[in-house]
Amino acid sequence: MQIEFWFEFASTYSYLSAMRLPKEAAKAGVSVRWRPFLLGPIFAAQGWNTSPFRIYPAKGKYMWRDMERRSQALGLPLAWSDTFPQNSVLASRVAQLALQTDQGVAFCQAVYTAEFGQGHDISQTPVIADCLAQSGLPADLIDRALQDDNKLALRRTNEEAARRSIFGAPSFMVGDELFWGDDRLDDALEWALKHV
Amino acid sequence: MQIEFWFEFASTYSYLSAMRLPKEAAKAGVSVRWRPFLLGPIFAAQGWNTSPFRIYPAKGKYMWRDMERRSQALGLPLAWSDTFPQNSVLASRVAQLALQTDQGVAFCQAVYTAEFGQGHDISQTPVIADCLAQSGLPADLIDRALQDDNKLALRRTNEEAARRSIFGAPSFMVGDELFWGDDRLDDALEWALKHV
Repeated sequence: MQIEFWFEFASTYSYLSAMRLPKEAAKAGVSVRWRPFLLGPIFAAQGWNTSPFRIYPAKGKYMWRDMERRSQALGLPLAWSDTFPQNSVLASRVAQLALQTDQGVAFCQAVYTAEFGQGHDISQTPVIADCLAQSGLPADLIDRALQDDNKLALRRTNEEAARRSIFGAPSFMVGDELFWGDDRLDDALEWALKHV
Repeated sequence: MQIEFWFEFASTYSYLSAMRLPKEAAKAGVSVRWRPFLLGPIFAAQGWNTSPFRIYPAKGKYMWRDMERRSQALGLPLAWSDTFPQNSVLASRVAQLALQTDQGVAFCQAVYTAEFGQGHDISQTPVIADCLAQSGLPADLIDRALQDDNKLALRRTNEEAARRSIFGAPSFMVGDELFWGDDRLDDALEWALKHV
C-alpha cells in the first residue's frame, strides 16, 4: 500500500502533516511517496496572486490561531512569521533531489522546522544548506538543484498536480482518490489499507 | 458548559455537524446554542457572489466527493443537487422561531435532511411547511417568520457573525474561541470542557 503526499513548503498545514506522517504511516503499514510541489501556479490559475490566508484576512487570522492549537496538540514548535507565504521554490527544487536519497524525509522535516518552528526564511541558500547538513546530505545538492533538468522536473510535477485536480496542500492521493488537508491524513491512510 | 453552533442551511458541511452534534454534545455534557446565519453577506464582503465551491470548480468537485465519503462514514443520506448553493433565507428565518421551542433542533435536522438527504429545494414554502409538520411545529411559524422583527433579528445575527470574525460554516464558538469546520466539532467540545 502506498499513498502520495503532495506538500508545499510554504503551507502551514503541510508542516503538520510532514512532521507526523512518517510515524502514522509506519503505524498503519503504508508507504509514502513524498511529492513536493508549488501552489503558486495553481492559485494563479484560480486568480489568486498569493495565499488565500493573505487574501482573506479573517481566514488568515483564524488559520494562525488554529495552527497554534494544532501544533500544541502535536507537540510541535510554531514561530509566527510576517513573511507568509514564503518563497518555497529553492526548497522544493532541493527536496526533489534529497528525496532520491534515504535522507530526503529528514531534509523536508528540517526545512519545515526551520521555517515554521524557528521562523527562518527558507528562500535563503544558507538556511537550506543548514537543513542539508542537519540531514546528512551534501551541500552541492543546491547547485545540482538549480540545473535545468531539475527545474523542469518541478515544473512537470506541478503540471501533474493540476492535471490530477490538486487545488491545495497538503493533499494525499491514494491512486486517484484525493484527500485534502492535514485533517484527512488518517482517512487517506485508512483508504490505502482498504482499497489498494 | 456551552458552545454556539453557527450554521448555514446552504452549507454541506453544516449538514454533517447538524446531524451529529446533538449526540456528540450530549455525550460530552456540553449544551449547544444553535445559531442559524447566512454566509451570503459574509462571502459578498470577501468579493464572492456565490459559494467558493462554485467559484473554484476543482474545490467544488472535491467537496462533493469528500461529502460522499463523510456522509457514508456517518450513515447519512446524500442527494447531490445541481441547485447549489440553495437559497436558505426562508429556512433560516423560520429556524430562528423554531429554535425558541423544544422542537427547534428537530426542525433544523428535518430541513437538512430534506435538502441534502433528499434533494428538495428548501427555498420552497411547502418544503419548509413539511419540515415544520415533521417536527411537530405549527405551519403559521412561516407567516411569523416573514414579519419585520424576525427579518431584522436575522440581519442582527449576521452582523454579529461578521463582528466575531466568522468567515465560514459550520463554525463553533466557545466564548471567543472560534473553531471552523465540521472537522473541528470534537475540538470545540473538548475546549468547552477544558476552558469554560
